[in-house]
Amino acid sequence: MKKFKASFAAELPRINAALAAAVAELPAPARPIARHILDAGGKRLRPFLTLLFARLFDAAEADRHRLAITLEMLHAATLLHDDVLDNALLRRGKPAAHTVFDVPAVILGGDALLSHANAIVASFGDTRMTRCFSEAISSTTAGEILEIAARGRTGISRQEYENMVRGKTAWLIRAACEMGALAAGASKAGVQAAAVYGENLGMAFQLVDDALDFAPEEITGKPTGGDVREGKFTPPLRLYRQSLADKERAAFDAAFARGFMTENEAAAIARRIRQAGYDAQTRAEAQHFLHTALAALRGMPDTDTLSLLRDLCVYARDRGQ
Amino acid sequence: MKKFKASFAAELPRINAALAAAVAELPAPARPIARHILDAGGKRLRPFLTLLFARLFDAAEADRHRLAITLEMLHAATLLHDDVLDNALLRRGKPAAHTVFDVPAVILGGDALLSHANAIVASFGDTRMTRCFSEAISSTTAGEILEIAARGRTGISRQEYENMVRGKTAWLIRAACEMGALAAGASKAGVQAAAVYGENLGMAFQLVDDALDFAPEEITGKPTGGDVREGKFTPPLRLYRQSLADKERAAFDAAFARGFMTENEAAAIARRIRQAGYDAQTRAEAQHFLHTALAALRGMPDTDTLSLLRDLCVYARDRGQ
Repeated sequence: MKKFKASFAAELPRINAALAAAVAELPAPARPIARHILDAGGKRLRPFLTLLFARLFDAAEADRHRLAITLEMLHAATLLHDDVLDNALLRRGKPAAHTVFDVPAVILGGDALLSHANAIVASFGDTRMTRCFSEAISSTTAGEILEIAARGRTGISRQEYENMVRGKTAWLIRAACEMGALAAGASKAGVQAAAVYGENLGMAFQLVDDALDFAPEEITGKPTGGDVREGKFTPPLRLYRQSLADKERAAFDAAFARGFMTENEAAAIARRIRQAGYDAQTRAEAQHFLHTALAALRGMPDTDTLSLLRDLCVYARDRGQ
Repeated sequence: MKKFKASFAAELPRINAALAAAVAELPAPARPIARHILDAGGKRLRPFLTLLFARLFDAAEADRHRLAITLEMLHAATLLHDDVLDNALLRRGKPAAHTVFDVPAVILGGDALLSHANAIVASFGDTRMTRCFSEAISSTTAGEILEIAARGRTGISRQEYENMVRGKTAWLIRAACEMGALAAGASKAGVQAAAVYGENLGMAFQLVDDALDFAPEEITGKPTGGDVREGKFTPPLRLYRQSLADKERAAFDAAFARGFMTENEAAAIARRIRQAGYDAQTRAEAQHFLHTALAALRGMPDTDTLSLLRDLCVYARDRGQ
């Protein structure tokens, strides 16, 4: 794990330099908004994955940072739009962009990031890359639309939830991995393996996030139970709701649909979720996806890069523990 | 001109069928929003231009409607976002989408249209097409960002204004023409001619729109002087402002910047603009762009398609007269 973190840290300056260069190419009024969201932090997981998969299939140390940042730009664009749609006050512990700039500027700032990333990918002149990127935009948008439509509803099945997360979160991480494999000229089977790894890693990331949402604030630095207050019916909540008696369940459904749950009510639900181990059960579901991700790497030459990709699955599993 | 309108009308059913098919492929919650904006009317100018240029360079009657609608989808996406940003109540004489659906749904509906159009273009597997489309998205977004930043400002030069319009309006029309030429496998010079024609036609369309904004409501069906009330410093307003004495000009600047102009004040400005002929002068500027558009067609074989493209310049010039 030490090696994984060191490798991540070593890439960060070049990733951030490539991001800064791309932001400087945006229309002037969009730049401060792009900087606001990108400078607020973030793990740069997506560019890192692109670089790792490029290296996995082609050991030559080519400069692929300009390609690698495109999925981070798309990610930042969705965060800007999401925060407007959710009317969120904070993002990564700092004021959300639309509380600092105005809403039209933030929406257009997101559009500018997305469209410039799309243009950067197009400039590589590789139709497989443009297809990969355009599918990532479509799937992410579709996932967000499904999520907004599902807000406040408790009748969402596990299958429906997974489809939503696959679009909203996992597809972008999948595309980051695929993009690296494509840049390295990997075989069709190689690109497919990158896609399977990325999609399943992304699913696991989201499920662990869903579990962490009910952890005490001391651990995450975020108020406990944000999802239940925002009407997001995540797996720990599905398990919690199943455990309720009919009367309790009807009361929960009504409060959830109204979207007027207090911090105290959310904290009480979070305590019951932790006591019953529904968060741990959600982490176990994540583990299932991580097994699939690891299986996709089977048979590949045992390089340092491969072991970093394996470490990333351990990191995804153990976050916040 | 009769032939031009008949040819337009003959294409319409196939264009609308291709649009309906693409909308049916969107995520379910986005479909009613896409239908709302697309069914509200619109000339379908952009798909028509793509089809015309495809035919100009390749007489074979291939089915290019699925490609042709992509720039209409992008156009519709920008209208959805624009109306949210402008808080417009009406679009094409009907309630704007965000007054019927909610704002998040409309923003995501626009995102869905844009991303699906991008995916359709990518599916053709032609890097010149994906570059053309991604440049159209970037330029349109950049133009909108500049327009929002310029709102309420009177110090905008003719050059700045033209740059904004080139991004916001003309680039998309240019891309529609280029896309047709690319689909037909035109030479580099042919694609360039299509681009020059489209960009200049687009500039002319916007300038005539700017002039028409000060026409009486009986002619356009829209309240007179909408632009001045929305803080858009268009060419007729630039000419009007130049004609004012210092004291009058200071009062105009203050009211324009505040954005609190009444319908009566706007109507009074519109009357003075018409009396002084500043709207006619703006139409004359449009004519200059149309000459450049027509010049780009010089030397091409004198087919029916070419004469339709020439007629379109006459139509653009004479709208609302």
